[in-house]
Amino acid sequence: MKFEGSHILSVNQFDRSAIEQVFQVANQMVPYAKRQKRTKVLDGAIMGNLFFEPSTRTRVSFGTAFNLLGGEVRETTGMESSALAKGESLFDTARVLSGYSDIIAMRHPQNGSVAEFAEGSRVPVINGGDGSNEHPTQALLDLYTIEKEINYHGGSLDGLHIAMIGDLKFGRTVHSLSKLLSLYKNIRFTLISPKELAMPDSVLSVIENAGHRLTITDQLEGNMDADICYQTRIQEERFPSQEEANQYRGKFRLNQQIYTKHFQSKTVIMHPLPRDSRAEANELDNDLNQNPNLAIFRQTDNGVLVRMALFALTLGVENLVSQYDCDVHWYSNKSK
Amino acid sequence: MKFEGSHILSVNQFDRSAIEQVFQVANQMVPYAKRQKRTKVLDGAIMGNLFFEPSTRTRVSFGTAFNLLGGEVRETTGMESSALAKGESLFDTARVLSGYSDIIAMRHPQNGSVAEFAEGSRVPVINGGDGSNEHPTQALLDLYTIEKEINYHGGSLDGLHIAMIGDLKFGRTVHSLSKLLSLYKNIRFTLISPKELAMPDSVLSVIENAGHRLTITDQLEGNMDADICYQTRIQEERFPSQEEANQYRGKFRLNQQIYTKHFQSKTVIMHPLPRDSRAEANELDNDLNQNPNLAIFRQTDNGVLVRMALFALTLGVENLVSQYDCDVHWYSNKSK
Amino acid sequence: MKFEGSHILSVNQFDRSAIEQVFQVANQMVPYAKRQKRTKVLDGAIMGNLFFEPSTRTRVSFGTAFNLLGGEVRETTGMESSALAKGESLFDTARVLSGYSDIIAMRHPQNGSVAEFAEGSRVPVINGGDGSNEHPTQALLDLYTIEKEINYHGGSLDGLHIAMIGDLKFGRTVHSLSKLLSLYKNIRFTLISPKELAMPDSVLSVIENAGHRLTITDQLEGNMDADICYQTRIQEERFPSQEEANQYRGKFRLNQQIYTKHFQSKTVIMHPLPRDSRAEANELDNDLNQNPNLAIFRQTDNGVLVRMALFALTLGVENLVSQYDCDVHWYSNKSK
Repeated sequence: MKFEGSHILSVNQFDRSAIEQVFQVANQMVPYAKRQKRTKVLDGAIMGNLFFEPSTRTRVSFGTAFNLLGGEVRETTGMESSALAKGESLFDTARVLSGYSDIIAMRHPQNGSVAEFAEGSRVPVINGGDGSNEHPTQALLDLYTIEKEINYHGGSLDGLHIAMIGDLKFGRTVHSLSKLLSLYKNIRFTLISPKELAMPDSVLSVIENAGHRLTITDQLEGNMDADICYQTRIQEERFPSQEEANQYRGKFRLNQQIYTKHFQSKTVIMHPLPRDSRAEANELDNDLNQNPNLAIFRQTDNGVLVRMALFALTLGVENLVSQYDCDVHWYSNKSK
Repeated sequence: MKFEGSHILSVNQFDRSAIEQVFQVANQMVPYAKRQKRTKVLDGAIMGNLFFEPSTRTRVSFGTAFNLLGGEVRETTGMESSALAKGESLFDTARVLSGYSDIIAMRHPQNGSVAEFAEGSRVPVINGGDGSNEHPTQALLDLYTIEKEINYHGGSLDGLHIAMIGDLKFGRTVHSLSKLLSLYKNIRFTLISPKELAMPDSVLSVIENAGHRLTITDQLEGNMDADICYQTRIQEERFPSQEEANQYRGKFRLNQQIYTKHFQSKTVIMHPLPRDSRAEANELDNDLNQNPNLAIFRQTDNGVLVRMALFALTLGVENLVSQYDCDVHWYSNKSK
Repeated sequence: MKFEGSHILSVNQFDRSAIEQVFQVANQMVPYAKRQKRTKVLDGAIMGNLFFEPSTRTRVSFGTAFNLLGGEVRETTGMESSALAKGESLFDTARVLSGYSDIIAMRHPQNGSVAEFAEGSRVPVINGGDGSNEHPTQALLDLYTIEKEINYHGGSLDGLHIAMIGDLKFGRTVHSLSKLLSLYKNIRFTLISPKELAMPDSVLSVIENAGHRLTITDQLEGNMDADICYQTRIQEERFPSQEEANQYRGKFRLNQQIYTKHFQSKTVIMHPLPRDSRAEANELDNDLNQNPNLAIFRQTDNGVLVRMALFALTLGVENLVSQYDCDVHWYSNKSK
């Protein structure tokens, strides 16, 4: 895959070698994210951060990643402040706004909108989420986190056992992650969800065509030897009736007690965030915060690394980054 | 006209020599906008980008222009997030916010508000649009585009024939552009609009007092030899009744077929944007996108150049820009 | 008090020596704020400016302060664009967003929220206002302004006479300022408010325990020899009935005539801003704008200095600032 000048729109663009290239560049970004040093490789470059749908975490992560490479960010948030509301086509918006920056990160509530926008853009566009369709940087940061965590425990992506739990029907992240994982060898998927929220056939066929092991269940039980437990939120309004929602209530939540009962002690817990921490939600209990295998905040930290890597690769500076190194003078807890 | 330290509030501030000065500096900005090189002349300067009314294109264009000169941007959008909503006067807001920046670009829905704000400001203020009153940077970028396009075809501003089409009554851009064009010699204006949306007398008298040729019609027809066709949107709610709106429907739209029928093949098509690309709108059809004389996206690109020029002039650095040149390391399609 | 790596959450953290340290660093910031020179000491650092409640003045002041030290700002405004709305805990939000920056300034409508957020943050957090609870940077800039103004008139903080006027019950600023002033010697407080809006006992006891002189009244009258007149707004909806509001209407407003009648000619007028300049409000008349002792805009200017000082101190660069000095090339009215 040629990154320089390319749009990043879908996980389907990536083969294993492209993923490895992203991860290798992401690894080089660690000292910058830790504030051990900084780089000015993109000093003078401008990133257009277009969030036509709110997402604080993803928006700030993209912006920070670009700043950490030395670049500037011009931000647009909300639909109402956009000419789109006056009937401007995505093509026109893209043609105009791409004149104002060197690269664009974009989120939009409508499926396919980012690809349509990219058609009109004169600069590379990175999809930051288009409706229920794609969110490739999330899938890449999830996979990057899995590899780091599993390497820490002495394992590798090939041969991984992942349990995906919760709403596997509407959860965009588990679909994309499943496709990326399917590029590796001998993966074991344990898919745990209410029957109404099962993984779609389109994703199952990708897994099966690649010859991976697949277990589908609606019970979270048994001494499971998953390496990764990827938890997602179940929204009760997804069920056809409240009765059906009620029969599953609490059955897919994860807390320390359930973790101890069902998983091996080194199983890594992941979640795309945000997690709902209200008492009635409890998809991932706060009592897991002390669990060293809770990787959810390492996931968001890794998101900065992966987005830095994608910016560097699409702008063709991945081999120049350290040429523009500078010192960090200020206090940082991150460098410790 | 002395630019350094001045507010840019109205097209009425400009004579022909001032315009030429802006355009000369704008021309010097081309290599920076094309990312062939960059400058740090305003490194450390802060621009306050105050958009009390949404306008993504204008806001990002101002911000990008300042970033391209090396400066920082602090942005405020929306009225609700402003102390104005708590009864703070524009004078107080200006006095306070001008303490936080070196220059201010401001848009506000109320006529005269930017001039009132400028009274309290301790730094230069550039009007980014105040209600139906003024939007001088739009008029300047329009005129700059006309000159560039007409030069390309071997012509000059003096002796130009411009057709203005659509809502000439409420269209702020055509009023300001007419005033600026009237500073040149021997201009021919063909004004095409529904009678209800005709150019106001105040603008007509500027044109006539300067001795230019004037044709007023409500018919878009005849082998017209205009150099420039400046199209604007007709909003149906501007008509006193739906019947009156209906009788004009589609009569002022422009598409490739109408263009071929009514205009000479080198006529340049302009529009202040956004254009409404919805099927029922069709003020400027998408089938014109392949027409090399469609200049609407060159207009928005030129907006960055003109705004860079105004920032450089009001901050008195127009002769220092190239002293702070640096190289561009990253991939750019724009430099090609 | 150790500043490096610390959160700034409350005025209660400050003793007199800590205040003096902040003010000393703030004084060093003057040439940068005046654009006589600039510094790049925080070049490459990122500040997360999280305004979950709108406050244009405070938000831009924090952002500008960080820019003036050479750093970058990533901004978040509004609750709706936040995962908080999806039930994310402040702890999770803090853990995630603190991964994206080197320091955070935060405003939030809920009392105690910033301290709760700081628990989860991996970088220093500066409270930019949490509901009716605390706004320590406002109190510090108020005190800094008082010291500067009183020094100008040959006085000092010790022995100061301050009159506080208006809504002393709900006015967060007068509570915090009273606490800070109580750290000094022999202060005289004259508290002037409607009985319904009197200073709370909790604040009165701080003043009294420190042995300061205290006068409480609901009449603005008598040749008062206050050094400082700190005016706040009275919102009529604070009264139990309109009748009670009416009996005070206009009795706490300040204009030039009342100033001349009640205060000595060197009394400094302060206000936390925004002031309501609508005709029916008149808490601080516009006819005072010509009064050289109206310090309200010097207050907001000083806010930048104090916030620069707090950023420099918490990031441990207060002694490095001038090592990264650069020249200012552009026009600035501020340097005159």
